[in-house]
Amino acid sequence: LDPLTIGRLRGRLAVIGLGPGAAELMVPAVKAELARANDVLGYETYVRMAGPFRADQVMHCTDNREEMQRARHAFALAAQGRSVVVVSSGDPGVFAMAAAVLEALHESTDPAWHNVDLEILPGVSASLATAAQAGAPLGHDFCVLSLSDNLKPWDIIEKRLDLASQADLALAFYNPISRSRPWQLGRALEIVARHRTAQTPVVLGRDIGRPGQTLRVTTLGQLTPDQVDMRTMVLVGSSTTCVFARPGGGDWVYTPRWYGEKPTS
Amino acid sequence: LDPLTIGRLRGRLAVIGLGPGAAELMVPAVKAELARANDVLGYETYVRMAGPFRADQVMHCTDNREEMQRARHAFALAAQGRSVVVVSSGDPGVFAMAAAVLEALHESTDPAWHNVDLEILPGVSASLATAAQAGAPLGHDFCVLSLSDNLKPWDIIEKRLDLASQADLALAFYNPISRSRPWQLGRALEIVARHRTAQTPVVLGRDIGRPGQTLRVTTLGQLTPDQVDMRTMVLVGSSTTCVFARPGGGDWVYTPRWYGEKPTS
Repeated sequence: LDPLTIGRLRGRLAVIGLGPGAAELMVPAVKAELARANDVLGYETYVRMAGPFRADQVMHCTDNREEMQRARHAFALAAQGRSVVVVSSGDPGVFAMAAAVLEALHESTDPAWHNVDLEILPGVSASLATAAQAGAPLGHDFCVLSLSDNLKPWDIIEKRLDLASQADLALAFYNPISRSRPWQLGRALEIVARHRTAQTPVVLGRDIGRPGQTLRVTTLGQLTPDQVDMRTMVLVGSSTTCVFARPGGGDWVYTPRWYGEKPTS
Repeated sequence: LDPLTIGRLRGRLAVIGLGPGAAELMVPAVKAELARANDVLGYETYVRMAGPFRADQVMHCTDNREEMQRARHAFALAAQGRSVVVVSSGDPGVFAMAAAVLEALHESTDPAWHNVDLEILPGVSASLATAAQAGAPLGHDFCVLSLSDNLKPWDIIEKRLDLASQADLALAFYNPISRSRPWQLGRALEIVARHRTAQTPVVLGRDIGRPGQTLRVTTLGQLTPDQVDMRTMVLVGSSTTCVFARPGGGDWVYTPRWYGEKPTS
């Protein structure tokens, strides 16, 4: 085989992040990758968000829970020489498909899978898109946690919440609540409240960067789990996070760059 | 004044994130904002990265430390009805200009400043761009810390390092070292090493997304501060972070989505 043919036979697998959803927040590298794809795999909602696709492109939509099967399917297609895209929303490296794809590769002894041209393309993460809409609540040290105990024991989540709250880090919660996990958020907020006052600012961003987005600023004392659903990003401020009114209504939220004594300049 | 004139007179201030540097990782909303700008303010390196600019656009380059003066200057220009862009690299909400701009507005009683059409436009952060190049080291719960004690006391940094390491969070270090802060990184690594083994994977990404980028995978036991400079992003794995070889050389690094017992599917 000549090098050109080998190049054509070597498949490609790109794990991409769409960003929050709006086209103007998707990086050009991801747009180019979607245009060259033969196959697009992902949770149906995200595959639809990534489209429209041409008639020659194959969409493989699966349920959100089947991450490992999807990752293996992507390698099986790419190993045939196809150009394959695995779609995540936000950034693929933050509670999304990049870790599953690498785990599938790590487990595999198939040289054809290891020969695939694999690339992870970053995107604007949901936490940072929500933070930008609110101002800069993650403008200082922060911690990003998933509250889902589907893939980790609840006691490690409690331990992390307790330590991160003690550390006075701003907090971003992914997967804050779902029908099958109804009580976890309330318990999480109790743990945070051991170390933060009731006045601590909280940002609730729902469907940020998508049609019908809503942004709400409240406090730790006023937040109740019924204000949150699985499409809500929850950002909890640190002891230094500030809130002030916007002239058109609503609030700005930011965590200053300094901690302790305010600089004089 | 008619509404159109008022609209024209109402200045705009956009705080934007360029992403890591490469044009294909800058979101279209930021590109559009740069095109409409009358004035562009920022640290010289980032303003140059955002260009080229037209002859009618004014560049205001300042030193990296003068964040509050730059923020006030931006409001003073926007309050005159101009369209102003403040440039950060990465995401403006992560150790960058968004927090300074909001602090400047919060301190001001000038209604003209509060009347400015202010928007924060997110970007691909340096930590997530570096993570994508390495694989998915931040694929599970993680913590983002600045090691600079210019604007916060060193003891809060030590406390946060200790608690975040105890919590077994993956760690991303911004501002890991500089000529004026030579010993802090070594001390930080000692604190992390109380809670992590010497085999813990570490990713060093230098100038990721820019010309001459380098990516290096090492371990906590082998890392020494002389391998790091101020342009290096340091990512430290958790106890579950895995490393395996890429066929072309180098390694993939990822933190699995699960914790504790590995799921069977």
